[in-house]
Amino acid sequence: MSVKRKNRRLRIAVIGGGACTVKQAGLAREVGAELARRDCIVITGGLGGVMAAASAGAKSQGGLTVGILPGSSDGDANEHVDVPIVTGLSHSRNALVVRSCSAVIAVGGQYGTLSEIALSLSMGIPVVGLDSWDIDGMEPAQTPGEAVERALTLIAKR
Amino acid sequence: MSVKRKNRRLRIAVIGGGACTVKQAGLAREVGAELARRDCIVITGGLGGVMAAASAGAKSQGGLTVGILPGSSDGDANEHVDVPIVTGLSHSRNALVVRSCSAVIAVGGQYGTLSEIALSLSMGIPVVGLDSWDIDGMEPAQTPGEAVERALTLIAKR
Amino acid sequence: MSVKRKNRRLRIAVIGGGACTVKQAGLAREVGAELARRDCIVITGGLGGVMAAASAGAKSQGGLTVGILPGSSDGDANEHVDVPIVTGLSHSRNALVVRSCSAVIAVGGQYGTLSEIALSLSMGIPVVGLDSWDIDGMEPAQTPGEAVERALTLIAKR
Amino acid sequence: MSVKRKNRRLRIAVIGGGACTVKQAGLAREVGAELARRDCIVITGGLGGVMAAASAGAKSQGGLTVGILPGSSDGDANEHVDVPIVTGLSHSRNALVVRSCSAVIAVGGQYGTLSEIALSLSMGIPVVGLDSWDIDGMEPAQTPGEAVERALTLIAKR
Repeated sequence: MSVKRKNRRLRIAVIGGGACTVKQAGLAREVGAELARRDCIVITGGLGGVMAAASAGAKSQGGLTVGILPGSSDGDANEHVDVPIVTGLSHSRNALVVRSCSAVIAVGGQYGTLSEIALSLSMGIPVVGLDSWDIDGMEPAQTPGEAVERALTLIAKR
Repeated sequence: MSVKRKNRRLRIAVIGGGACTVKQAGLAREVGAELARRDCIVITGGLGGVMAAASAGAKSQGGLTVGILPGSSDGDANEHVDVPIVTGLSHSRNALVVRSCSAVIAVGGQYGTLSEIALSLSMGIPVVGLDSWDIDGMEPAQTPGEAVERALTLIAKR
Repeated sequence: MSVKRKNRRLRIAVIGGGACTVKQAGLAREVGAELARRDCIVITGGLGGVMAAASAGAKSQGGLTVGILPGSSDGDANEHVDVPIVTGLSHSRNALVVRSCSAVIAVGGQYGTLSEIALSLSMGIPVVGLDSWDIDGMEPAQTPGEAVERALTLIAKR
Repeated sequence: MSVKRKNRRLRIAVIGGGACTVKQAGLAREVGAELARRDCIVITGGLGGVMAAASAGAKSQGGLTVGILPGSSDGDANEHVDVPIVTGLSHSRNALVVRSCSAVIAVGGQYGTLSEIALSLSMGIPVVGLDSWDIDGMEPAQTPGEAVERALTLIAKR
């Protein structure tokens, strides 16, 4: 089942570290793949680690991927990004990644990811965590499939 | 013939007023359509007027459209935008529209468009004008087809 | 003792909720006052609550206060702000508040403050917390005087 | 006579190239000096050329200077800036410089300056030009004194 609003495909952010563990890369890849199967557009920060893994997973299922980059060149985007958005905003781009989406799935991550989680929650955007920070207001999930399911359910409830 | 770089579809910005003349809307629509025929992704500011017309033209040819919005809600996007990027940046989003593209086509436009033309030129991104501002460094074109051709030629030369 | 770098007065951010408890307002006011006594410029997000209290404290000691506003009008600034910076960036302004400073003192705060703490830590800017979030990497303090002392010590060590 | 609104000192932007002619540097310096004599805060983009000259002029008269920097380090600020605001926003910082002020005085300048002029006009902020671009809606001035006088008059009329 795919979910749309106003005839537009849902956009879900997958956030996490530019450096990540092998386990986290596997989780992110499967999250991206499952989102693509559900016909969601996958938006990330466009760089490596979790961002590249989620984008690769989405592309493995024929999905559409957007990377909202902090720097000034689309050369920074990983090869699995279909549409690089080149912001030149440095850390201020974090708000754009989450604000452009109906829900956020965090996989692992460090302080940058924590800032995105906090920005999402301050905007009222649901956040599901997989092996990530544990902040009041986030919803934990145990598997990629559960994370995607949870995110879509939270969107449907809004 | 479609043009790609690093296996990624080219992104071209179409900029212009949120209010525009009927003539300008027609020009913008045909620019969007021609860009889609050339397999380019059409990026606009996502609102009405020239932005909506260019996006509608691209969709009429099965193209992919991105709208980089100044406000805080994807509800601001016109119906022809496939991927709204919700920046919440107000006027500071203008730099993102042009920086995310390899060339810019300006159709009509007022001060906001002039700021985008100036930002493009200051970043070294080629700008083609159709019934628009006449600023040193821009390339004028007479028809939508010529504007697209000129933009692609300027990209190829870089 | 005042601290300068390159002959420029130190800038310290005081962050916290636009709504806060009476206790937090008192803490923020005293932090602002002590920073002004140390000749530091006090930078906040320019709105109410902790931001207004810290600015008021600084002004009570003849300090200089800057408010980096998320909205589009300097009318949003509290009356204790000498220099409103009007960003129009919405949540993306959070990164500017902390990036403009050598250290950050967090008083109370909710998700917006958490995003600023996380951004600071991701940029390597020291963060001292007073009755605030408890995130690995922050330094807790018990009193306004201790918070200021700790912040200045952390800056001196860098 | 100094001009205040709500008991706050007026903020006027001086914009222009990071590289400029000797003549333009002299004009900018005198504009900065005259603004400081009128008790205005001088806001610039914080870098060299016209920005440094205007800031130096303001400091020669004991004024207060703010530099809204595009980069990520306050080390980019010229030595005449009292308060560097470190945006990390690259070209998107241009909107902040003008939006933070009640009027803008442009001295010389190239495409970056043109973008700031256009952004000002699109926001309805008055722009006075000295040896600068000639865009419909700007007010030309012949001398630094006339530029400052004109800017203050335009603010008073709003």
